[in-house]
Amino acid sequence: MEELHEECGIFGIKYTEEAARKTFFGLIALQHRGQESCGIAVNKNREITAYKNEGLVNDIFTESVLDSLQGDMAVGHVRYSTAGGGGVINAQPLTLNYIKGSLAMAHNGNLINYHELKKEYEKTGAIYQTSSDTEIIAYTIARERVNTPSIELAILQSMSRLKGAYSLIVMSPQKLIAARDPWGFRPLCVGRCADGAYVFASESCALDAVDAAFLRDVEPGEVIVADQAGLRSLRYGDKPPSSLCIFEYIYFARPDSYVDGQFVLEARMNAGRELARQSPAQADAVIGVPDSGTAAAQGYALESGIPYVDGFVKNRYVTRTFIRPSQSMRELAVKLKLNPIARHIAGKRVVLIDDSIVRGTTCRHIIGILRKAGAREIHVRASAPRFLHPCYFGIDIPTENELIANNHSIEETRQYLGADSLAYLSLENLLKIAPDAKTGFCRGCFTGEYPLEI
Amino acid sequence: MEELHEECGIFGIKYTEEAARKTFFGLIALQHRGQESCGIAVNKNREITAYKNEGLVNDIFTESVLDSLQGDMAVGHVRYSTAGGGGVINAQPLTLNYIKGSLAMAHNGNLINYHELKKEYEKTGAIYQTSSDTEIIAYTIARERVNTPSIELAILQSMSRLKGAYSLIVMSPQKLIAARDPWGFRPLCVGRCADGAYVFASESCALDAVDAAFLRDVEPGEVIVADQAGLRSLRYGDKPPSSLCIFEYIYFARPDSYVDGQFVLEARMNAGRELARQSPAQADAVIGVPDSGTAAAQGYALESGIPYVDGFVKNRYVTRTFIRPSQSMRELAVKLKLNPIARHIAGKRVVLIDDSIVRGTTCRHIIGILRKAGAREIHVRASAPRFLHPCYFGIDIPTENELIANNHSIEETRQYLGADSLAYLSLENLLKIAPDAKTGFCRGCFTGEYPLEI
Amino acid sequence: MEELHEECGIFGIKYTEEAARKTFFGLIALQHRGQESCGIAVNKNREITAYKNEGLVNDIFTESVLDSLQGDMAVGHVRYSTAGGGGVINAQPLTLNYIKGSLAMAHNGNLINYHELKKEYEKTGAIYQTSSDTEIIAYTIARERVNTPSIELAILQSMSRLKGAYSLIVMSPQKLIAARDPWGFRPLCVGRCADGAYVFASESCALDAVDAAFLRDVEPGEVIVADQAGLRSLRYGDKPPSSLCIFEYIYFARPDSYVDGQFVLEARMNAGRELARQSPAQADAVIGVPDSGTAAAQGYALESGIPYVDGFVKNRYVTRTFIRPSQSMRELAVKLKLNPIARHIAGKRVVLIDDSIVRGTTCRHIIGILRKAGAREIHVRASAPRFLHPCYFGIDIPTENELIANNHSIEETRQYLGADSLAYLSLENLLKIAPDAKTGFCRGCFTGEYPLEI
Amino acid sequence: MEELHEECGIFGIKYTEEAARKTFFGLIALQHRGQESCGIAVNKNREITAYKNEGLVNDIFTESVLDSLQGDMAVGHVRYSTAGGGGVINAQPLTLNYIKGSLAMAHNGNLINYHELKKEYEKTGAIYQTSSDTEIIAYTIARERVNTPSIELAILQSMSRLKGAYSLIVMSPQKLIAARDPWGFRPLCVGRCADGAYVFASESCALDAVDAAFLRDVEPGEVIVADQAGLRSLRYGDKPPSSLCIFEYIYFARPDSYVDGQFVLEARMNAGRELARQSPAQADAVIGVPDSGTAAAQGYALESGIPYVDGFVKNRYVTRTFIRPSQSMRELAVKLKLNPIARHIAGKRVVLIDDSIVRGTTCRHIIGILRKAGAREIHVRASAPRFLHPCYFGIDIPTENELIANNHSIEETRQYLGADSLAYLSLENLLKIAPDAKTGFCRGCFTGEYPLEI
Repeated sequence: MEELHEECGIFGIKYTEEAARKTFFGLIALQHRGQESCGIAVNKNREITAYKNEGLVNDIFTESVLDSLQGDMAVGHVRYSTAGGGGVINAQPLTLNYIKGSLAMAHNGNLINYHELKKEYEKTGAIYQTSSDTEIIAYTIARERVNTPSIELAILQSMSRLKGAYSLIVMSPQKLIAARDPWGFRPLCVGRCADGAYVFASESCALDAVDAAFLRDVEPGEVIVADQAGLRSLRYGDKPPSSLCIFEYIYFARPDSYVDGQFVLEARMNAGRELARQSPAQADAVIGVPDSGTAAAQGYALESGIPYVDGFVKNRYVTRTFIRPSQSMRELAVKLKLNPIARHIAGKRVVLIDDSIVRGTTCRHIIGILRKAGAREIHVRASAPRFLHPCYFGIDIPTENELIANNHSIEETRQYLGADSLAYLSLENLLKIAPDAKTGFCRGCFTGEYPLEI
Repeated sequence: MEELHEECGIFGIKYTEEAARKTFFGLIALQHRGQESCGIAVNKNREITAYKNEGLVNDIFTESVLDSLQGDMAVGHVRYSTAGGGGVINAQPLTLNYIKGSLAMAHNGNLINYHELKKEYEKTGAIYQTSSDTEIIAYTIARERVNTPSIELAILQSMSRLKGAYSLIVMSPQKLIAARDPWGFRPLCVGRCADGAYVFASESCALDAVDAAFLRDVEPGEVIVADQAGLRSLRYGDKPPSSLCIFEYIYFARPDSYVDGQFVLEARMNAGRELARQSPAQADAVIGVPDSGTAAAQGYALESGIPYVDGFVKNRYVTRTFIRPSQSMRELAVKLKLNPIARHIAGKRVVLIDDSIVRGTTCRHIIGILRKAGAREIHVRASAPRFLHPCYFGIDIPTENELIANNHSIEETRQYLGADSLAYLSLENLLKIAPDAKTGFCRGCFTGEYPLEI
Repeated sequence: MEELHEECGIFGIKYTEEAARKTFFGLIALQHRGQESCGIAVNKNREITAYKNEGLVNDIFTESVLDSLQGDMAVGHVRYSTAGGGGVINAQPLTLNYIKGSLAMAHNGNLINYHELKKEYEKTGAIYQTSSDTEIIAYTIARERVNTPSIELAILQSMSRLKGAYSLIVMSPQKLIAARDPWGFRPLCVGRCADGAYVFASESCALDAVDAAFLRDVEPGEVIVADQAGLRSLRYGDKPPSSLCIFEYIYFARPDSYVDGQFVLEARMNAGRELARQSPAQADAVIGVPDSGTAAAQGYALESGIPYVDGFVKNRYVTRTFIRPSQSMRELAVKLKLNPIARHIAGKRVVLIDDSIVRGTTCRHIIGILRKAGAREIHVRASAPRFLHPCYFGIDIPTENELIANNHSIEETRQYLGADSLAYLSLENLLKIAPDAKTGFCRGCFTGEYPLEI
Repeated sequence: MEELHEECGIFGIKYTEEAARKTFFGLIALQHRGQESCGIAVNKNREITAYKNEGLVNDIFTESVLDSLQGDMAVGHVRYSTAGGGGVINAQPLTLNYIKGSLAMAHNGNLINYHELKKEYEKTGAIYQTSSDTEIIAYTIARERVNTPSIELAILQSMSRLKGAYSLIVMSPQKLIAARDPWGFRPLCVGRCADGAYVFASESCALDAVDAAFLRDVEPGEVIVADQAGLRSLRYGDKPPSSLCIFEYIYFARPDSYVDGQFVLEARMNAGRELARQSPAQADAVIGVPDSGTAAAQGYALESGIPYVDGFVKNRYVTRTFIRPSQSMRELAVKLKLNPIARHIAGKRVVLIDDSIVRGTTCRHIIGILRKAGAREIHVRASAPRFLHPCYFGIDIPTENELIANNHSIEETRQYLGADSLAYLSLENLLKIAPDAKTGFCRGCFTGEYPLEI
């Protein structure tokens, strides 16, 4: 029922006791980034063993599985995947042998020159056992490694070949290495535990999960090596404008994470404040679509002076495996997940904050539910601009045809949704929500202009 | 990590298409009342078939299992159970054959004369295959039925034999029957769907889940029969003072449910308001322990004028199967589940609202986490009185010895918790939080005086 | 694909280390008697715990399950069951509480007055949670026990109430008790291990499996108690003619078992010898349908002087869970299970020994397979008379209508099977095959005259 | 408990309905060659999908799994694997993408230049995701394919690079191809179904399973292509002496298979006849260790005139997952699997035929069991020479140290076993047992002289 999905969350830790168990904690903190499959690879005396499966971290990694994963270095992965590319075979970390022994790799992102590289390597006899671009990254690094004195340099050199989004954690026999593409599409940060262990993670909330202090974000185009000598940094020469995916703030990241300097929860509240200034409404209450719309609704309420109220109770037991109901029960299923608190809504003019409107179907069901719960007027405010173009960098979105904004004017969309008014946060205002961010942003899904040529 | 557990949630529906699927929806809405095992029994042409297993509703009832449960009448159950009494063998609904054919029974509550009745029936050759008191209720009804003209009268007559808490839904070959013990310990209500189907459920939120209109609560001592003639009510003659478990308002029920006339979310906010009046604090922010403390914190904030802030992000992926970490990782595990939002806490004097303090260990960990996140002062306010006595009516609580209030003064408890101040809502004020409730309350756990002789 | 099924195998052991593991060995030895579900109950300090599930003994009882079953007394069960009466709920041993504490019961057989007793007990308020007659036996014993000074006397007194086939092993808090119905339909024997532990089992091959010495068969109408004082025997007064099911020799029992004094393998060879004398054939080779037809074929060969050859290789990986192929692949499936050794058959006149012809479909497929493998003539000899009547004592057979002998003359059957000649062992000759047996036989399925009024 | 294991069985079929289901039948017929994991890959409109898992064919391939495998061409695999190299990751068929699209490969055998090739390819940037040599074969073929006009020529050219044992079935988008190494270590044959579909299989018994007529064996160094044009054959130029593993006759292959022209059952009987001539014994009965010793025992009996008797009943429910019992129960576990028929043994002088003596432990337990069953004398005859050297071509054997023949003279071995006499079939006589075989044999494990330099 969710409308947007990102591909993954990654986590790595080096030199610590119970490395697998701490990675397990880190992955649970990152579970919101991917619920389809998960995996942990550990390194004991330079030997890598891994366990991967489909399911949630807490279901897959039982006590006995964790006990079987001994080692003082580990890398983990949670994965969402699009239909067809799933299954255990594509679960990560990818583990492999190459010229220098074992490697484990966890990847978040999406290559755009996947097919080009695949074809190139095939011509020298390469074989592919997965359908993921992670395997292409692995090949690229392995090929560079043949004539490069270290794994970290091989990764750095691979950057000139890899086009697209990739936040990587690579575990070699002796090193744990984080790398982030030169555009910085996907987040990645580094921290340190009290026992001196270094930690890499997609979001800072995963550092919190193992009580690691946040050190800093991995910078776009940076490779950070953790080994016995401590941390070292290498930088890729070419410096394109940084292009963090702004949906990390709006939707993907956990509210208690810092991403590239910006506290996510505040970015969401800022989006609500901007919306209130830009598109005010005459209303009695502000409500948000849980979870990501809640903070924006609180921001809207604070800025507008209209009281914030809880509009829904979200049922946490409606998980991603919830059986797809027949058409006739679709609205009932949405209501099962988001039960309206009629007492807060009945007879009121409400502002409804949603993080984004993609297909529009779920939003339409929600509006129907609010009407039945007695809402007098419903003013929809989206905390992102109209979603018009595909994403090539790791967000799984419908085809352009299915994007409601592509075929409908705002007024048509309003009618389809059944709202009394509808407004989107403008791109200009969106760019104001993260004043602490040290990056620029990719805005391709709104404008069709991407940081790289597609 | 939760400190209190109730035994069950129950749901039944009669004369509708897809009765099993609707019961599935109802059970997902009641999943918070029990996560250990679940089951659904359906009735097709007077024949009852059931499926029960350990696990969550959404995991157990796959599409193919639901497809195998055909019928136009169904009863379902979610169960929490104490160690030793678990397992599939004790999962419900209990299905059985007796003199009049098949029965399925779902039960929420706890008998106090279980052993007495068990011994009595044994003397006539009874055998018991479970360790649950539901089987004793079934025997009682089956024995009454032998000389009673209808199942509903047999249930009514059983009421003079059964001492304790029982909200029941019984499915006979042709009827669906709800019954609530004369004290009304556990909630039970009735609703009607647009297609005319009658629904019984522990809480009104489960009526919402199937789009049923709330009709009314089942009254203490009442038996309601749904059959082809519609609804009929029978009443047990003896009328003890009604004694709803007040923890339904404080903790168990979902905030969007109405229980015996009172909207639960408001009762929680009222508890916060009462606390603010009774035990004010000099502070900069009010935070609540999610989920049940949140509404009380909002009430406290509104009454006191101190701003409410979100203190934690709750990780929904730390479920009840989360592996029990070693002592050294216990606090880390609490933090994994409740990550503090340091930005909202650091340098502040905070009021922390918890629904109740039972053992005190989790509260202590939370306070430790808040300190590390930079809280300057922590003023703990519990939205319930001191928990001093065992519950005999269906709440699974620690032994009296483990109840921190039993061995420690309030000052000692404050020191143990590491709080700057500590106050409990008084019993007198607690009784004010549910002005719309049409019932009296059991207050045994606070006073040791129970509605029945134990 | 098998045509006859018996209900169960039972095993019990008292006072030994690793009682559960030895029961596991015993059940594996008895697995041929039932492959649908299995269970073991153990007794430790008078407390009974059990584990039951659907599947094969070796799959269900993993190391960790066995480790969880501590105690020095145990009872186990393997079960075949007819459609509808299966499922975990009907798996055995049945464990229960009654007036004197816990009981576990394992049962092989079938009551014929099940409905009568069920109705009688219902009138006093009994409830039934399974659909097996074992629960009725348990009720009968529990009711007798109320006014009887010991469990063994209660079992003995129950014998006057229970009509039908029952070999029972009952584990009470302090005793292990074996009982066999007065007609002795199903086998049961007793042995002793080197460490002094007493063992009860359906067949002597299960005594071998735990290195127990065979002591003797439990006699029809006998109750044997194993407790701290050793073994004691009680006998039911009424002595009907003993009526062992003769199919134990022909088909059910393992060839290496002794049943009521007769070595099973020799009984099968004797059947072959009798057949050779009664119905000779002009042929070049004798082959048997594995497994039970093999010994009879060897007997036929020895008596007739025609050489015995292996006619088939039986594929052991075609198990009872083998997916039911479409009609068009049915013969292929039979051939997958029984691949003919063409080199032994081609161009030859063969005598084919089958243990019995029930529906005839499998035999017909086998004959088709032999023809394709080049057999010139096929002379079918069945080592049992024509199967004409239902069994009420524990064998799951098709309805009378489906018994080929009921609707077809021998000549018609021969034509249906596609055989060149067909003969059945006569009842008179059948009764000669077990000269060492100390019992009489039930011949109901051949004659329609049963030892009890049906 | 078995002492020798081979790695695999392979099966492929082209242009037929229900290709997956027929492959399922074929794999069940080959299950004796590997019970650890299995898999089937199908090809529908040039797209390959696969399902692989650990377990037996009949457990893994449920109706719904088979239904999901649509296509008119399929390849399947059953695998035994040594510790460490197991797991789903190494299950076959290996499926991959390469320069010409998809491939699926099933392999039986073992490369000896695995490490050499692995190192060579690594230098060009190759990565390995499994630990099986099948991946190396795939790389070799993929690399050859880059500059070769067809997949079959690429396979043929790979033969000059691959040293060791490999029977292969390769499925490309449009072709099904069988290849056998130039030495012919492992068997492979081809057949045709009535509907014209071509079938490749490790043994002819798998052709029987799908009612395919045997056409011929794939010859050493031959590549056979099945495509729309029918069958075509290519031959590798270099012609080393053929070297079939003789244990295929003694132990691995099913008795009803023809391997390279020789009927396996007769080869086993011949071994017994040779043994009887070479090493006669004064005895009353000949018995064989089931299953592979049975035919040899029958041959010994026929040649010697000493009667053959069944010595054991083999329990088919003791499978490879049988839990490893503690030392004290080891002999009991052997007896559970092979229960002696005391009636056939007691008081007799027996000749015991075993197929080979590797470690000697199981044989010793069996002799102990026979002694307890009353055997007066036990004369052990092994139907293979002394096992002295490791196998590099696909048989999993103990280390040289564990081979009893390496550290013990025949007399010492006899004493260790507890036999009255002991003799091994001589190599010279062994070579006589397969008069119909059109191949030479590898005799490395007996002589240390291998067909290839190791």
